[in-house]
Amino acid sequence: MFTRASRFAPVLALAGSAAVLVAASPEPIDHAINARIRAEARDRSQIMQTLHVLTDVYGPRLTGSPNHKAAAEWAVTEMKKWGFDNGSLEEWDFGHPGWLNERLSAHVVSPVKDALVGEALAWTNGTDGPVRAAATQLILPERPTADELKTYLDGKAAAVAGKVVLVGAGKPVPVNFSKAPLRRDYDDLTAMLDPVNPRAPQFGPGGPAGRQAPVVEPGRLTPRQINEQVDAFLVANKVRVRINDGGRDHGQIRAFNNPSFDGATAPPTMILRNEDFGRIARLLADGRPVELDVDIVNRWYPEGRTSYNAVAEIAGSDKASEVIMLGGHLDSWHAATGATDNAIGVAVMMEAARIVKTLGLKPRRTIRVALWGGEEQGLLGSKAYVAKHFGTAEAPTAEFATFGGYLNVDSGTGRIRGASVFGPPEAGRILREIFAPFEDLGIVGATVTKSRSTGGTDSTSFNAAGLPGIGLMQDPIEYQSYTWHTNLDTYERIVEDDVKKSAAMIASALYHLAMRDDLLPRFTGTEMPAPAPAARPSTPTPTAPAPTAPAATPTRQ
Amino acid sequence: MFTRASRFAPVLALAGSAAVLVAASPEPIDHAINARIRAEARDRSQIMQTLHVLTDVYGPRLTGSPNHKAAAEWAVTEMKKWGFDNGSLEEWDFGHPGWLNERLSAHVVSPVKDALVGEALAWTNGTDGPVRAAATQLILPERPTADELKTYLDGKAAAVAGKVVLVGAGKPVPVNFSKAPLRRDYDDLTAMLDPVNPRAPQFGPGGPAGRQAPVVEPGRLTPRQINEQVDAFLVANKVRVRINDGGRDHGQIRAFNNPSFDGATAPPTMILRNEDFGRIARLLADGRPVELDVDIVNRWYPEGRTSYNAVAEIAGSDKASEVIMLGGHLDSWHAATGATDNAIGVAVMMEAARIVKTLGLKPRRTIRVALWGGEEQGLLGSKAYVAKHFGTAEAPTAEFATFGGYLNVDSGTGRIRGASVFGPPEAGRILREIFAPFEDLGIVGATVTKSRSTGGTDSTSFNAAGLPGIGLMQDPIEYQSYTWHTNLDTYERIVEDDVKKSAAMIASALYHLAMRDDLLPRFTGTEMPAPAPAARPSTPTPTAPAPTAPAATPTRQ
Repeated sequence: MFTRASRFAPVLALAGSAAVLVAASPEPIDHAINARIRAEARDRSQIMQTLHVLTDVYGPRLTGSPNHKAAAEWAVTEMKKWGFDNGSLEEWDFGHPGWLNERLSAHVVSPVKDALVGEALAWTNGTDGPVRAAATQLILPERPTADELKTYLDGKAAAVAGKVVLVGAGKPVPVNFSKAPLRRDYDDLTAMLDPVNPRAPQFGPGGPAGRQAPVVEPGRLTPRQINEQVDAFLVANKVRVRINDGGRDHGQIRAFNNPSFDGATAPPTMILRNEDFGRIARLLADGRPVELDVDIVNRWYPEGRTSYNAVAEIAGSDKASEVIMLGGHLDSWHAATGATDNAIGVAVMMEAARIVKTLGLKPRRTIRVALWGGEEQGLLGSKAYVAKHFGTAEAPTAEFATFGGYLNVDSGTGRIRGASVFGPPEAGRILREIFAPFEDLGIVGATVTKSRSTGGTDSTSFNAAGLPGIGLMQDPIEYQSYTWHTNLDTYERIVEDDVKKSAAMIASALYHLAMRDDLLPRFTGTEMPAPAPAARPSTPTPTAPAPTAPAATPTRQ
Repeated sequence: MFTRASRFAPVLALAGSAAVLVAASPEPIDHAINARIRAEARDRSQIMQTLHVLTDVYGPRLTGSPNHKAAAEWAVTEMKKWGFDNGSLEEWDFGHPGWLNERLSAHVVSPVKDALVGEALAWTNGTDGPVRAAATQLILPERPTADELKTYLDGKAAAVAGKVVLVGAGKPVPVNFSKAPLRRDYDDLTAMLDPVNPRAPQFGPGGPAGRQAPVVEPGRLTPRQINEQVDAFLVANKVRVRINDGGRDHGQIRAFNNPSFDGATAPPTMILRNEDFGRIARLLADGRPVELDVDIVNRWYPEGRTSYNAVAEIAGSDKASEVIMLGGHLDSWHAATGATDNAIGVAVMMEAARIVKTLGLKPRRTIRVALWGGEEQGLLGSKAYVAKHFGTAEAPTAEFATFGGYLNVDSGTGRIRGASVFGPPEAGRILREIFAPFEDLGIVGATVTKSRSTGGTDSTSFNAAGLPGIGLMQDPIEYQSYTWHTNLDTYERIVEDDVKKSAAMIASALYHLAMRDDLLPRFTGTEMPAPAPAARPSTPTPTAPAPTAPAATPTRQ
């Protein structure tokens, strides 16, 4: 329907004339400022240096770990160097110790000799020095009741005692003949963001469709209950190491955490790449004895019970008491250095704010960068921040009224292609008009959401409180297919051109939101949707996809 | 031009009428036998079990290693169990000791802690126990003369002494926005195999276009000379470990060999995945001291100087003195278990012959399976075999005259889609007609070649002698993009449906070649192309793509 050459124009015309939308004056856009923002983002970018430090020097940045805290301190120091004010770490209670893997080596030593590729499961103990032991495998009954599982495990006690135990059958991962696209399709995105008749977002693998809690028949155990019971059984039988299957192709490993965050509840545990798990499982299935060497060194940090959000500001002028926020989560999983999840979100936001500061743009409202901890454990840092600073629509603090929006990036290296804001249609119109001058960089529009459910990333902590969280939709590139939570999430997977362009677009949005006469329109009074009934479970089980997966459109469930 | 529904028919009509082709009777096809072959290949396949043993139990099967010999012995025993005759290992002189990596673990221990992913370079020594040392990096001058390289290295002697040395700048590997197709395009393949006006084959990455020896200006060192000089320098300065960059995305590592096959000429050497090499290089570039732990255990096998080809036969009847051969190389590189390169070629050929045997088909000619060693070091096993048994067109043995063709598979898991035979157009016509009943499985046709150059796989050892080598063209699947010579070349990457269908097609071709009244037509007398002038270098340098890469069409250069 719309041509690529002028994709925004018809939308704006429609927005001004369609009965369902509030008629409004066009949003004032400062094209001269936008040109300066583009030049700074392109010619004097700091973003790759920021990304290098966040990933290579401080990665992985697991919540509660000294790496995470050091990264937060570095980010604040860096922003202060750039001239930001009020840089600080704001404490929040994580309640679990910090944990880091320091070493992991694993080898099959008989009947073949090979180095294995694996990752430690977070918040489990390491081995007490190098372990050499026979391997065995537990192929659990499917969807068992508690009694069925107990009967099965009781029968395996002698078989597992003192051994290295592969848990699960191992997953065949066929060649993928339907590779995920690297860029969003323009027509699809346009339809999704159509302000008059938006189409429901299409989610790829790992998106919300894959995140539904499995339906468990009455009397049957949930996957988490099964996992707890298996871990207790393995600990009771002095199993030396538990091994889970990576279950993904091309050696990818997604390593999550021991749900209890307590080393005593699980044996030392590692996730082995599917290829190595499969080889051992097939050798065992032949009846061949298999012997493994495993050496895992993990370290616990009691001080990790206190975690941090890193914040810094660019002071506003005549509307300094009003705040535009932007950020992303600084914490990461531990299988790699957390480049696309989410050093990029952090670096894009730091860079966007740096551009505004370094160009001397003097925003009317205060701009505040916030870099969260605990996102991967359930948006913990941003939830704590919102609760403390803003409360909720139903129980607001004084800051609630003067909040002008929170921009969030958390979907990998792909450039931003659209936005979703919690608020009335007028909020969507304003964002569309602010982003319109960047259609040449690929951004298509903005949509609105009324959902107060928390979802895959920190913007939904704001939505849940009734505040305008703004989630950015991005090109998928290799996010769900390769980098999200995997051992491949490194600096190498950053597309420099994309992250620079994202920073330019965010800088402009930030500036224009900070300069307009009024705050971004919000739901008020009876328009405010009811709070979501209950939060979903926030901790992934080690063998299942993480329920905190960032969605393709982060502010929708 | 041709429709999918009857793709072979127009080709055959054209073959019978076009002036450039010899007019001939249609090839007799036994459709009832083909139906039995399909059923056996589909319903009673042994191929996945063969692949499991070749990869999981005996992989990697590096030439000269006990694994390779044990795999060869197992294959002969298995074929004897299936009723094959004359199973044996035929010796040939490899001239180098065997070598295997038994253990490899590498960690960065300062300023960050992380387990690294790497593979040992074949035919280098391990470390003498675990090594902990500072890392440094050599960024070599580009295209140096001998003097320039010497000057550079002399200046670095103090900097490298006793350290772990990263050699090379490290290669940025951008996100690949042009993913390789998994299946061959039907129209492309049809044009390539057009018997009247064949189009030159299109090669993908890693095909011949990428395998041209680099042009070196007079006075400048070749990459191999540079590598030798660097290794000598590193040994002289007691460098603890040399580290090369994997240089590929998604953690892929292709590990080749020390060109000298002599541990004294190089330090202990490993190839690190690009992501880990890059991280260390960037930390060093900041001026941060980096400390590494490396522990590599390699073992040498003096008895590996003698290597083996494994052969077994199905005896013929009235034409038993004439031989149809089929095979593939059994040896592999060592970074994984050599599934797609080339356990699949071996297993497809063993399975094809098994089908003929188990169905009691009583071929007129003798069928001989040959599983080569030394392919990865330059087609050594097949060259030795051809020289001993057949000689050349210019100096033939008695067996030369009674040879009826050699079928070879060596391009990964993709099903066969076409063939290329060294011989006159009539040989191509016969293969086209033999394969035509399998067009529903995707095979498109056959072409001919006059080249006697040795190329990427063993069929060209026959071509070089002036004998009808038959290379099978296959669907690319993930071969050049993921599995060829990489640490991802495991059982998991086998597409079961494809290898089963390939086996059925080969079994039929084998049977029909063994039953026809005449041998496959060959070049005779003055038609015989001249021998190729000189062999290309056969040993890959550790930092460059292997010159022995199997081509997309294995019998062409």
